[in-house]
Amino acid sequence: MANYHNLSNVFTTTETSLSNTLFKSPPFHSFTALILEISPNPFPNTMAQELNVIKNNTINLETPIFDPEFETFRSRFNSDHIYVAGHVLVYPSYNGFFEKPGLYLDQLFVRTCYRGLGFGKMLFSAVASQAANNGMGMVDWLVADWNEKSMKFYDKMGAHYIPQYKLCKLYGEKLQQYANISP
Amino acid sequence: MANYHNLSNVFTTTETSLSNTLFKSPPFHSFTALILEISPNPFPNTMAQELNVIKNNTINLETPIFDPEFETFRSRFNSDHIYVAGHVLVYPSYNGFFEKPGLYLDQLFVRTCYRGLGFGKMLFSAVASQAANNGMGMVDWLVADWNEKSMKFYDKMGAHYIPQYKLCKLYGEKLQQYANISP
Repeated sequence: MANYHNLSNVFTTTETSLSNTLFKSPPFHSFTALILEISPNPFPNTMAQELNVIKNNTINLETPIFDPEFETFRSRFNSDHIYVAGHVLVYPSYNGFFEKPGLYLDQLFVRTCYRGLGFGKMLFSAVASQAANNGMGMVDWLVADWNEKSMKFYDKMGAHYIPQYKLCKLYGEKLQQYANISP
Repeated sequence: MANYHNLSNVFTTTETSLSNTLFKSPPFHSFTALILEISPNPFPNTMAQELNVIKNNTINLETPIFDPEFETFRSRFNSDHIYVAGHVLVYPSYNGFFEKPGLYLDQLFVRTCYRGLGFGKMLFSAVASQAANNGMGMVDWLVADWNEKSMKFYDKMGAHYIPQYKLCKLYGEKLQQYANISP
């Protein structure tokens, strides 16, 4: 995903940093990852007992998919022929103008060989359902202005763009400096 | 604040919605408001026992401030001559590219008669300190592109702009529609 956004130079995530920050609270109460797993076979019934399964869909493909990295992307559910095809990362968001909190979508990613099959829509709809079912009033996210394909996808679903807002970040040394100023 | 942003048409917040969503968790673990209160006199010692006080600063003014709405903005700490001058609303944020979570700053507001005295900087520095002291790696927020004064203020503090990202929001009927699509 960092490569896709040409941001591998800022990428500092590690397995430890992820496991220290994710999965610490009930899903959707804090930082939460949804994993999209696929299989050519029906999922075993025991899977839903072991993992927190939100949705289970069947789609019919015209041609089989070849995943060149299937070994790397085996499901952590220990079974044959289940692979990770994508993910989404969300957390509760708040805007003081609105009555209800929302879900902020930090990442939505479908691996290259699984694109064009509606998986992005499936992930997005899972997030929208969770927001609506948890009494939240919105889903919000950022889109890069060069990413016309995604913008079309968001347009179609009825999303509102708010182009006049620019993202700002204070981090590293500058954050420390600002933390220490007085008053 | 909604008037300041010309967004009073989308404003649906109520006292009930705020009290239902804020102050439900320890500060900075979820949605958190910091209130800037001012007084011409030293704050009573009992105040810090009753409220969660983060910082207490003294500034010397050349001319006294007249607050035309002081009656409306009395502190909820029951004492004379303590008034609310501004606030900031923050919550934990996450970016999958970075090792550490951050604090997202949804609102920073200083009431008109208290502007130009460094109160905005004081609120921002309180947020930066809380982020740094809680092991967070960044503070992030949005700025409206017409708001040159704020952009200068953020520039000076060493913030990075990431102008290529546009904010998107799915809400209302469209959220519900998308929540219900299958698969």
